[in-house]
Amino acid sequence: MNLARQTKSELKNGSMRKTKLAIVGLGTVGSGVAKLLLDHGDRTARHAGRTLWLEKAVVRDLEKPRDVELPTGLLTADVNDVYDDPEIEVVAHLVGGLEPARTIMLRLLESGKDVVTANKALLAEHGPELFTLARRLGRTIAFEASVAGGIPIITNISQCLSANAIESLEGILNGTSNFILTQMDRLGTPYQAAVAEAQRLGYAEADPAMDVDGTDAAQKLAILAHLAFGAQVAWQDIPRVGIEQLEPDDLRYASQLGYAIKLLAEAKLVDGKLDLHVSPTLIQRRTPLAEVQDAFNAVRVVGDAVGPVFYHGQGAGQMPTASAVVADLIDTAVGRTRLTFETLEPFSTTSPPRVSLRNSDELPGRYYFRLRVKDHPGTLSAITGVFGKHQLSIASVIQHERNEATSPGGETDIVPLVIMSHEGAEGAARAVAEGIEALGVVRDSVTRLRVKTP
Amino acid sequence: MNLARQTKSELKNGSMRKTKLAIVGLGTVGSGVAKLLLDHGDRTARHAGRTLWLEKAVVRDLEKPRDVELPTGLLTADVNDVYDDPEIEVVAHLVGGLEPARTIMLRLLESGKDVVTANKALLAEHGPELFTLARRLGRTIAFEASVAGGIPIITNISQCLSANAIESLEGILNGTSNFILTQMDRLGTPYQAAVAEAQRLGYAEADPAMDVDGTDAAQKLAILAHLAFGAQVAWQDIPRVGIEQLEPDDLRYASQLGYAIKLLAEAKLVDGKLDLHVSPTLIQRRTPLAEVQDAFNAVRVVGDAVGPVFYHGQGAGQMPTASAVVADLIDTAVGRTRLTFETLEPFSTTSPPRVSLRNSDELPGRYYFRLRVKDHPGTLSAITGVFGKHQLSIASVIQHERNEATSPGGETDIVPLVIMSHEGAEGAARAVAEGIEALGVVRDSVTRLRVKTP
Repeated sequence: MNLARQTKSELKNGSMRKTKLAIVGLGTVGSGVAKLLLDHGDRTARHAGRTLWLEKAVVRDLEKPRDVELPTGLLTADVNDVYDDPEIEVVAHLVGGLEPARTIMLRLLESGKDVVTANKALLAEHGPELFTLARRLGRTIAFEASVAGGIPIITNISQCLSANAIESLEGILNGTSNFILTQMDRLGTPYQAAVAEAQRLGYAEADPAMDVDGTDAAQKLAILAHLAFGAQVAWQDIPRVGIEQLEPDDLRYASQLGYAIKLLAEAKLVDGKLDLHVSPTLIQRRTPLAEVQDAFNAVRVVGDAVGPVFYHGQGAGQMPTASAVVADLIDTAVGRTRLTFETLEPFSTTSPPRVSLRNSDELPGRYYFRLRVKDHPGTLSAITGVFGKHQLSIASVIQHERNEATSPGGETDIVPLVIMSHEGAEGAARAVAEGIEALGVVRDSVTRLRVKTP
Repeated sequence: MNLARQTKSELKNGSMRKTKLAIVGLGTVGSGVAKLLLDHGDRTARHAGRTLWLEKAVVRDLEKPRDVELPTGLLTADVNDVYDDPEIEVVAHLVGGLEPARTIMLRLLESGKDVVTANKALLAEHGPELFTLARRLGRTIAFEASVAGGIPIITNISQCLSANAIESLEGILNGTSNFILTQMDRLGTPYQAAVAEAQRLGYAEADPAMDVDGTDAAQKLAILAHLAFGAQVAWQDIPRVGIEQLEPDDLRYASQLGYAIKLLAEAKLVDGKLDLHVSPTLIQRRTPLAEVQDAFNAVRVVGDAVGPVFYHGQGAGQMPTASAVVADLIDTAVGRTRLTFETLEPFSTTSPPRVSLRNSDELPGRYYFRLRVKDHPGTLSAITGVFGKHQLSIASVIQHERNEATSPGGETDIVPLVIMSHEGAEGAARAVAEGIEALGVVRDSVTRLRVKTP
């Protein structure tokens, strides 16, 4: 059926130029890309002014059942069939992880192919090497699908907002953790149960560590910071806090105070230096970022000319990601990617960064602290004393009476305490949390979250 | 100062290619574009890989004071200085209205210039003529700034979402009317006073007719329908209702029912035919479109692969619009616009439309009717009878007791009545409104609004 369609589309566009493509990696996203290319050839031909002809799809296991029907001869287990075919001009590189993904991309570039990828971890880890090689060989790497899935944030920053100096960028970039937080918020589901539900629905991997510990969001933020600010930052250098320590209580307390909690990735230019961090953050309800639900992503960019622009869409999933990959394939086939890539800053090793990062201790912010304290005389005084010592002033305190609900473990001398600070520095907030833990009056560690200032 | 900067930027980029530009029309947007080009040459050079050199700015009156400082020799009152300079390659055409805007654009194209414009009325009215000439001469027209100001919706539809069949598109495309509705909703301001406030703040023209009667939104929707669906529709053929007949009461009743009222432009593909309309619409609160405030614009696009993507930003204003114009200037200077323009469908006169429009009588929808009725026995029965006759079923009725608040004119025999229908056809809803008016029991005409179905 698919073969017939591709052929039909080609016959219909008989006089059209043809660009031969390959897909390496036919997993979820790869299958989606194959579907779009095979079933919707008319669509891509209309936008590209040429036939996008899928010549090869490279898989590890030829026998594995797939949810996309492929014409005979298209499937191969040998990636050399792509390297060695000089007629294949553009390759969708949809291999996850770092190796052999890195080696495959290097070989594709060396074989004269332009590459389209969705692998953000690979770019975050090996971007300089890959981009340097592509530039040296006159090839291109397109990577719209690597950040925020269906939201075309890469093209929007590098092309649509190019008249602006970007002042700030903040986003919900990890759909898995947003799904988990939505479950905890709406249904009061405990963290582990929410993770299990996300796994059951396919939103989370068997090992969701990179999603929930902030790694995935930090890798995406690093790519966006390169693009938007000309920063040259390794994702490992971005201060990040994950959502693992959150409890439904945190979402309930936040809600009582008028906030939602989201895993927020923020980049903000202050006095010429870039603040970067990933952290669970209290965001005022009824603002667009606070209302992002389930596995959706959102990005808010502020440019000095355009002002705020807000984007919301599906951050992952087969077809939203395939939509981004195919847009990149079209852009690469027609030559737009080449024109953009020529002036793209990311992962440049020849020019210096346009901005340096602010010392993370100096990052300004308001903070939410949640602790379980032993309900003894003098405890609150000792805790507030720690705030005073580090010159972080307290905006509000919630202390409920102890009861079975607040101490479900039955430890009735333990009560929850929530303290919101005024604006202070990240370093002071960290010192306060450490200082409180050192007092010996709290059970577990102190949960410390950022509070978004407008 | 500006001259020095342009020169400095050029010296610094001495080895760089240079593309000479002109601006025709130095009003609000034109001045903003000049500011970006003159004060931020480094920024545009970085993105374009070449210096964007502002060579001429054409104004009607050389003596008029301006808020942008221009280097000597740049300003001219003679547009022939642009036509006749073969070194000027790209021109920002920022002349409002239809004439001489049309003639100027035709002459620019004939003189071999690529054109960037913000004039949506001109495209909506003369698009086929202008695009045909540009195509014949191998020139390009870029028009990001013509729809939704700072939201780069043109590039997003024509490039970023090119892997998708667009299923629907809906937007708040007129900032002036959204500002007026926000005032009426938040403060209970009567319509005329809200218009005056919009004029005072510069959001509305002295004659705001095109903004409030739906013309401006219909012209923008026509352009988007060309791009997203391959429709060939004249804006005059889009059914449209304005906001002039709305009263603070309507916003209050809507709010009681859980809705906001927005002037919504909608395009939706149903059974292969395109539904298009512009109408004040009740939108469920706490959804993204309902929360668009003040002069902001928003667009929600649903693609078959990407799903829903939502955009929100400033729909007008000097710098947001200038941001879109300068992005187009960069795209045109580097050649991206040419690659996109080659396959762009809008205003094609050679290929048939991809979709036809649905007869507006058949448009499905739910409806809100607000009437002032004479409080006599049998009135409600007569009115509901009209609904029955046209087979539009009633979902809910709000009828308050008469008092001074509901009849401020003192006509205490007149009471307001609000009826919400179930899903029905536009033709039936119109027939119901006309049928009720013919009963002779209502004061004023019947206010009829659409209710957005999810």
